[in-house]
Amino acid sequence: MSGTAGAEDGGTTPGPRRRGRPRRSPEDAGPGARERILQAARDEFAERGYDKTSMRGIAKAAGVDAALVHHYFGTKDDVFAAAIEISFEPALVVPAVLGQGGTDGIGERLARYIIGVWENPATRAPLLAIVRSALTNETAAKVLRTFVLRRLLERVAAELDVPDPTFRAELAASHMVGIAILRYVVKTEPLASADPERIVAMVAPTLQRYLTEA
Amino acid sequence: MSGTAGAEDGGTTPGPRRRGRPRRSPEDAGPGARERILQAARDEFAERGYDKTSMRGIAKAAGVDAALVHHYFGTKDDVFAAAIEISFEPALVVPAVLGQGGTDGIGERLARYIIGVWENPATRAPLLAIVRSALTNETAAKVLRTFVLRRLLERVAAELDVPDPTFRAELAASHMVGIAILRYVVKTEPLASADPERIVAMVAPTLQRYLTEA
Repeated sequence: MSGTAGAEDGGTTPGPRRRGRPRRSPEDAGPGARERILQAARDEFAERGYDKTSMRGIAKAAGVDAALVHHYFGTKDDVFAAAIEISFEPALVVPAVLGQGGTDGIGERLARYIIGVWENPATRAPLLAIVRSALTNETAAKVLRTFVLRRLLERVAAELDVPDPTFRAELAASHMVGIAILRYVVKTEPLASADPERIVAMVAPTLQRYLTEA
Repeated sequence: MSGTAGAEDGGTTPGPRRRGRPRRSPEDAGPGARERILQAARDEFAERGYDKTSMRGIAKAAGVDAALVHHYFGTKDDVFAAAIEISFEPALVVPAVLGQGGTDGIGERLARYIIGVWENPATRAPLLAIVRSALTNETAAKVLRTFVLRRLLERVAAELDVPDPTFRAELAASHMVGIAILRYVVKTEPLASADPERIVAMVAPTLQRYLTEA
């Protein structure tokens, strides 16, 4: 673990505390180093995309040595998977949203919740960044595919009482992904400026049908 | 127009005919030069994305001088708009598809037509490439926005007899875009391998409602 000496001061983004004594081991990187790396990874992937993001760049942004990033997360794909994990945190609540209150109004509840996540720039930006990475890199697409399937679609499917529940969940998800792309990325009007509730009103019956009607 | 001499032989992709005599003017670049540039532009944008594509790279791929690309198309944005135009050619038939046969079964006809375009790798690849460029570059997004609105959404809207027809057309479009992304890019199962007709059967009632029900 050579090269970690003074790493925290060597980065462009200084850590929360600066000390004169050089760092010598992962444990010395200070509390919150793992969390800081994770945030830096999310930001780097979001800003540069999968291809242009490097372990070294993430380390620099987090104010730690690259070896520490490897120590905590392994390969670049592992860091990307961890970045997906925190970017999708709001989406991981979806199975719980579906599980509450039965199937009545499930489409409307889901549409409103997802539009809410998209409407908040803080939760929208990292999600769009992940989609962007997946669209431009096959490895990133693969990591995303596994995550979305295991952590999201299959859990939503477990809450549904329809034939082919995963297929139904995917159709619902595809609609919400497409709306996000047209509304927030391509920004075609009037969808880009439409009141969120107007979108919810139109989309809710679609999701309701996919998720509940045999 | 200096520098066009021998341009056709200087590119990595030779033109259809090779001659010893150097080229001296746009007219001399040979028949089909404009078409060749357009195909090269589409391929370059598809392969490299908007950011990494250059006028020089397009010229090289087409086996012509960069000045000729400027001569025919103007700026990089103009070339990108032209590349969108030919990439979206199959989609531009949509208003006609809607116009035929009244509103009965309009959702099913549209879903089947669009899935058909996506299913064909030759028509799918350039479309995905345009979406990819728009997702990674704001200028590309802007050029796409204008095109999609003027040439596609507003024409589809003109065929509809519902309130807010452009909004309705956008909701339908968003669903098809999202399906393309999950099925062909992220490739989550079972959607990725589902029979196209199974998707049409589920999606048709959604499009029918958006496009015809007040």
